[in-house]
Amino acid sequence: MNSDKPRHAPQSQFPVRDGHLHIGGIALPRLAQRVGRTPFYAYDRALLTARARELRAALPAGLRLHYSLKANPMPALVQHMSSLVDGLDVASGGELKVALDTGMQAQHISFAGPGKTDAELTQAIAAGAVLHLESLRELESVARIGEALGLRPMVMLRINPDFELKSSGMKMGGGPRQFGVDVEQAPQLLRRISELGLDWQGLHIFSGSQCLNAQAIAETQSKTFELALRLADHAAQAPRLLNIGGGFGIPYFAGETALQVGPIADNLAHWLPRAQAALGGATVALELGRYLVGEAGIYVTQVIDRKVSRGQVFLVTDGGMHHHLAASGNLGQVIRKNYPVAVGNRMNEKSGETVSVVGPLCTPLDMLAERMELPAADVGDLIVIFQSGAYGCSASPSAFLGHPQALEVLV
Amino acid sequence: MNSDKPRHAPQSQFPVRDGHLHIGGIALPRLAQRVGRTPFYAYDRALLTARARELRAALPAGLRLHYSLKANPMPALVQHMSSLVDGLDVASGGELKVALDTGMQAQHISFAGPGKTDAELTQAIAAGAVLHLESLRELESVARIGEALGLRPMVMLRINPDFELKSSGMKMGGGPRQFGVDVEQAPQLLRRISELGLDWQGLHIFSGSQCLNAQAIAETQSKTFELALRLADHAAQAPRLLNIGGGFGIPYFAGETALQVGPIADNLAHWLPRAQAALGGATVALELGRYLVGEAGIYVTQVIDRKVSRGQVFLVTDGGMHHHLAASGNLGQVIRKNYPVAVGNRMNEKSGETVSVVGPLCTPLDMLAERMELPAADVGDLIVIFQSGAYGCSASPSAFLGHPQALEVLV
Repeated sequence: MNSDKPRHAPQSQFPVRDGHLHIGGIALPRLAQRVGRTPFYAYDRALLTARARELRAALPAGLRLHYSLKANPMPALVQHMSSLVDGLDVASGGELKVALDTGMQAQHISFAGPGKTDAELTQAIAAGAVLHLESLRELESVARIGEALGLRPMVMLRINPDFELKSSGMKMGGGPRQFGVDVEQAPQLLRRISELGLDWQGLHIFSGSQCLNAQAIAETQSKTFELALRLADHAAQAPRLLNIGGGFGIPYFAGETALQVGPIADNLAHWLPRAQAALGGATVALELGRYLVGEAGIYVTQVIDRKVSRGQVFLVTDGGMHHHLAASGNLGQVIRKNYPVAVGNRMNEKSGETVSVVGPLCTPLDMLAERMELPAADVGDLIVIFQSGAYGCSASPSAFLGHPQALEVLV
Repeated sequence: MNSDKPRHAPQSQFPVRDGHLHIGGIALPRLAQRVGRTPFYAYDRALLTARARELRAALPAGLRLHYSLKANPMPALVQHMSSLVDGLDVASGGELKVALDTGMQAQHISFAGPGKTDAELTQAIAAGAVLHLESLRELESVARIGEALGLRPMVMLRINPDFELKSSGMKMGGGPRQFGVDVEQAPQLLRRISELGLDWQGLHIFSGSQCLNAQAIAETQSKTFELALRLADHAAQAPRLLNIGGGFGIPYFAGETALQVGPIADNLAHWLPRAQAALGGATVALELGRYLVGEAGIYVTQVIDRKVSRGQVFLVTDGGMHHHLAASGNLGQVIRKNYPVAVGNRMNEKSGETVSVVGPLCTPLDMLAERMELPAADVGDLIVIFQSGAYGCSASPSAFLGHPQALEVLV
């Protein structure tokens, strides 16, 4: 094995005992028995708690932490997250229902996303949740529906900034975008919010996601604060809340390393008192999804067949791209790369061979690991895909080819 | 507009009257009222029938035509297809159920796919369907389960050939593959099938899909026949059926043109009598999915918002990548390209502006059309994505972000 080859970041968050990976303190084979069948996703409750606590300890006091359901909307997980954060961010009427079911106070639930339907706007206003306005048309619809319901809608203005988050996996700000209103149009919308008597809460400035470069995040946050201070001059009153977005990434592929939160925390400690002073005591919220839950989850699938075709070993599993589209390389990736993968019941065994792990679908797209070094595995062994707590189960084409759905457990 | 720019193949299969696209003879706005809400997929029954009839008329008599459910497993559509073809091909226990529900005789239903579970093998043997064996291990399992059930399993041997389908969107044969058994191993498996007393039906040789080059398909079919004749010498008895796979593509992207069936039909007319003579009267089956149903379907989504961001027009719709992953560029494509798109209620209007059509998801991946020339559209207009009858609804992450599922109608 070439030691210069880029490697995956170590997956040390799950303990190993007797050669078995442990999730929520349970040995993987026992967990598989308890779930009743493979494939399944397992999320570790203690790891979720630890990540949120560590992040809070690292970040300056007074910063609000929000969880964005789009990363993982499993109801039991969202319930757990609601006890760890100060607010929940949703992106559809369906996610709003899950968030409300946790008991989180509606004014700490915010709803962002282009193309909200009138039915969704009605739901949010009736619930008393905060709507992130994405266009002038949506603003007018919100005012109209609020009047019809006899309610005063709570709104934030979502801004498409004039800068982007560098080094991010997905850019969501800068240039022409479908998200929010261009910063150039913001003063006009702030005036209109005031004219229509909506209950204005503040600003939402989101520029990208899945960034592993702390310096890039800190720089973007600085620009976000500068922009917010500039825009606040155009509002009739001081904002109560400034949502500075998220963008914190986790390492998926060989050669990537974990995000260093320190430089981001230092920069926030610098800005927080300044922003609060300039914005009349507004609170600042960080909105995170993947970073809070992604590393606490694994996908588990069982080897159904082992075959050798022209010298290459294939492990054929009962799960695949229909449950984990991102690991198959078909969710936003240009070139397919391997997620970190292990044989969860052979954790003490050395890599013995180069294998490809494929799913049961009758398509070459159904590839979970391509030519990776793994301990020699056979039928019945449990393949684990790490870093699967976010954008896994809910982001996959579960009906594709008519196989059973993946189960999800929080342990 | 630059007339040298590559264009999409014309979408003339759906008539236009009074500026409205018609599906199943129904004007699109009326169909949307009838469905009850957007977004939805609509499949045109008459176009499905016409495609199967035209293909049969073009191909030599005696060739069997199979429909592969993986392209579109909607039960009503499969029921209709079952009246047009000679067999149904399934790739999971779930698809097997849909195929059996049509009333198609079980011996004309074949089940291929790596990683079949014991439960799926049991289902197929109990039903009397034909199992396409993908490995020696699967062969042994089938014999064991057959014995336990007191039934003689019907099997085909699926071969990974020593050639591939050139110019195909997805190669499924040649080199090391998870599909079937390498041709080099085939004689050993044929002996084992005979030893175990399984009811051997024949060979399945599938080398790729989504190919628009008739010459490449014809050449591959010639190699397939040659290979089958070679392999048949190793079998204890003559095969009853030779499934030569499919691979017929449809034009999705600008610059692509429809497949010419003529050269393929000529080549098949040359081979069919030779193969039947050499194989003791075996019948030959062509297995098609996408080619039979892809062009008969559209995806329909409504404009919810129209916004201009830094000079670029965005139409924000109520549907998106969660319903139509392939059109968003996230199903096997390396570079995102536009499907053919139209404004279904403005078919007589000229392209008036360059717009991007985006869905309601809070991610930049949710793009249905990027900077296309379309008639000027606004809220309430119906955006149509053509070529959506295959690998659309069932191949998409419908739960992503908690929006309502797409409906499907056959009209």
